[in-house]
Amino acid sequence: MKIKKETILLIIYDFDGVMTDNRALVFEDGKEAVFVNRSDGLAVKAIQDMGIEQIIVSTEASPVVRARAKKLNIPFMESVGDKKKVVEKYLRKKKLCRQNVIFVGNDLNDKEVMEFVGWPIAPVDARREIKKIAKIILSTKGGFGVVRELLDKLKDIIDE
Amino acid sequence: MKIKKETILLIIYDFDGVMTDNRALVFEDGKEAVFVNRSDGLAVKAIQDMGIEQIIVSTEASPVVRARAKKLNIPFMESVGDKKKVVEKYLRKKKLCRQNVIFVGNDLNDKEVMEFVGWPIAPVDARREIKKIAKIILSTKGGFGVVRELLDKLKDIIDE
Amino acid sequence: MKIKKETILLIIYDFDGVMTDNRALVFEDGKEAVFVNRSDGLAVKAIQDMGIEQIIVSTEASPVVRARAKKLNIPFMESVGDKKKVVEKYLRKKKLCRQNVIFVGNDLNDKEVMEFVGWPIAPVDARREIKKIAKIILSTKGGFGVVRELLDKLKDIIDE
Amino acid sequence: MKIKKETILLIIYDFDGVMTDNRALVFEDGKEAVFVNRSDGLAVKAIQDMGIEQIIVSTEASPVVRARAKKLNIPFMESVGDKKKVVEKYLRKKKLCRQNVIFVGNDLNDKEVMEFVGWPIAPVDARREIKKIAKIILSTKGGFGVVRELLDKLKDIIDE
Repeated sequence: MKIKKETILLIIYDFDGVMTDNRALVFEDGKEAVFVNRSDGLAVKAIQDMGIEQIIVSTEASPVVRARAKKLNIPFMESVGDKKKVVEKYLRKKKLCRQNVIFVGNDLNDKEVMEFVGWPIAPVDARREIKKIAKIILSTKGGFGVVRELLDKLKDIIDE
Repeated sequence: MKIKKETILLIIYDFDGVMTDNRALVFEDGKEAVFVNRSDGLAVKAIQDMGIEQIIVSTEASPVVRARAKKLNIPFMESVGDKKKVVEKYLRKKKLCRQNVIFVGNDLNDKEVMEFVGWPIAPVDARREIKKIAKIILSTKGGFGVVRELLDKLKDIIDE
Repeated sequence: MKIKKETILLIIYDFDGVMTDNRALVFEDGKEAVFVNRSDGLAVKAIQDMGIEQIIVSTEASPVVRARAKKLNIPFMESVGDKKKVVEKYLRKKKLCRQNVIFVGNDLNDKEVMEFVGWPIAPVDARREIKKIAKIILSTKGGFGVVRELLDKLKDIIDE
Repeated sequence: MKIKKETILLIIYDFDGVMTDNRALVFEDGKEAVFVNRSDGLAVKAIQDMGIEQIIVSTEASPVVRARAKKLNIPFMESVGDKKKVVEKYLRKKKLCRQNVIFVGNDLNDKEVMEFVGWPIAPVDARREIKKIAKIILSTKGGFGVVRELLDKLKDIIDE
């Protein structure tokens, strides 16, 4: 499968289950924490250097998403009920075509938006229904370097 | 095995080993935290939308259970020594028949109550003695989406 | 292999790698946390009910050990450089014979004391040198229910 | 492969992915924590006792590295963009030959410095490109006792 470099202008990440293993550590006061991967941190930076925009879109309204997005230095949208609607609006605003957009998701609430964008991509442990509609299924599990593998895939298929 | 939708009115969850992997993170001040799964969060909500009541019954008296139950927006009972007694009383109060109740448990302190309710269900890594009495053994380990798989099972067997 | 119930009067646990998976979560301020297992909590209580004394002996001087021992309601000794010496002294004080003592350990700093007591026992992921001297090698990894399996072993071999 | 004891004067560790499993726990306030291994703690001490200097060199500017280095009682350098440059300078200052230096690394940002030192060593789950240039590939994954296995290797190959 070929992706031409110039056709990828935006990568949208679901957070839980993509940048994490879909688990959250719950504390006694209700606060939460999640495990992220250092290799994803390096990869997000490398993709930025390639001039591709990246953004996190999460159903959760968790300060953890904000904290991680801040460290990665990329924008995020949280408390997103209807991801497709939000992404559609964002593409209109940014004057982007959906063919030029990757969405990396793992669960049913990513299904509609993944059917909408040009490049739906899923980690290997995504829900069966999600893997069925993904153009590319990565060999990495959520939280164990999904962005890192995506970076490798981007590099491999770039025709310079 | 067939479950008719109308026969399931209440699902009772043990907490540790069902919604978690049975491990607790212990801090220097004795506080604790546990890993829960985002997919269970989505599933609890979907089951609520089906009109089925859900409740957590835990032996532990941990603020973590309270925090998680609050986020899931379902009731909980903690510090429960004799789960069967407490569940029996709850069913009487709610005028529910035990045939219409699922109990998801994993350890010996769930055994009596699981023999009492109509639908004892166990994660794949439950104790041997518990799996022996379970009507359904899920393929998921505790903390890795037990409620999510239960939701799938509920949907599959609903005869509409 | 037969252990007679009356011969086991004391069980000594190493902490890290026995009640935990040998890992510690390190925070920015240097504080630590460890993952323990709920099934071990239930098992420690069941062994107390059998009238067998239990104690934790740890090389680390970590408040986490204290916190866990307090919750399990058993004594502990921390910052122990020479475990054999400390255990010898403890047995003299308590007038216990080493034949009546189990020591559950996993690493080289447990070797000498494990050669000293009557019943050296090791989790399956203990160091090779430790498993070589263990009378019983459990099938459980450290932190995943070592005490639970020990309880099962105790019950199986009790001749009443 | 033979390493003579006298030729190893310095061991440099990358932190994330070597002393940890490359994951970081992210809290709501952006603070982080990582899992380290007790067996590495014991091993660092044993290597100190052999008279070999040890140091951590990390790309991250994380207080967690500082906290761990302090507990291990070894120096560290953080926020290191160009590890090779920093290591070269350090060796000049210490009047050390690169032939006498081990570098344990796992990711692309370790590649140049690993090609520079005499003894590049990688955990089994290091990046393919890193394992390709490593003189020794350990059988341990990052965070699960890499230093411990390195200690064993050092001992095995010492010709006294």
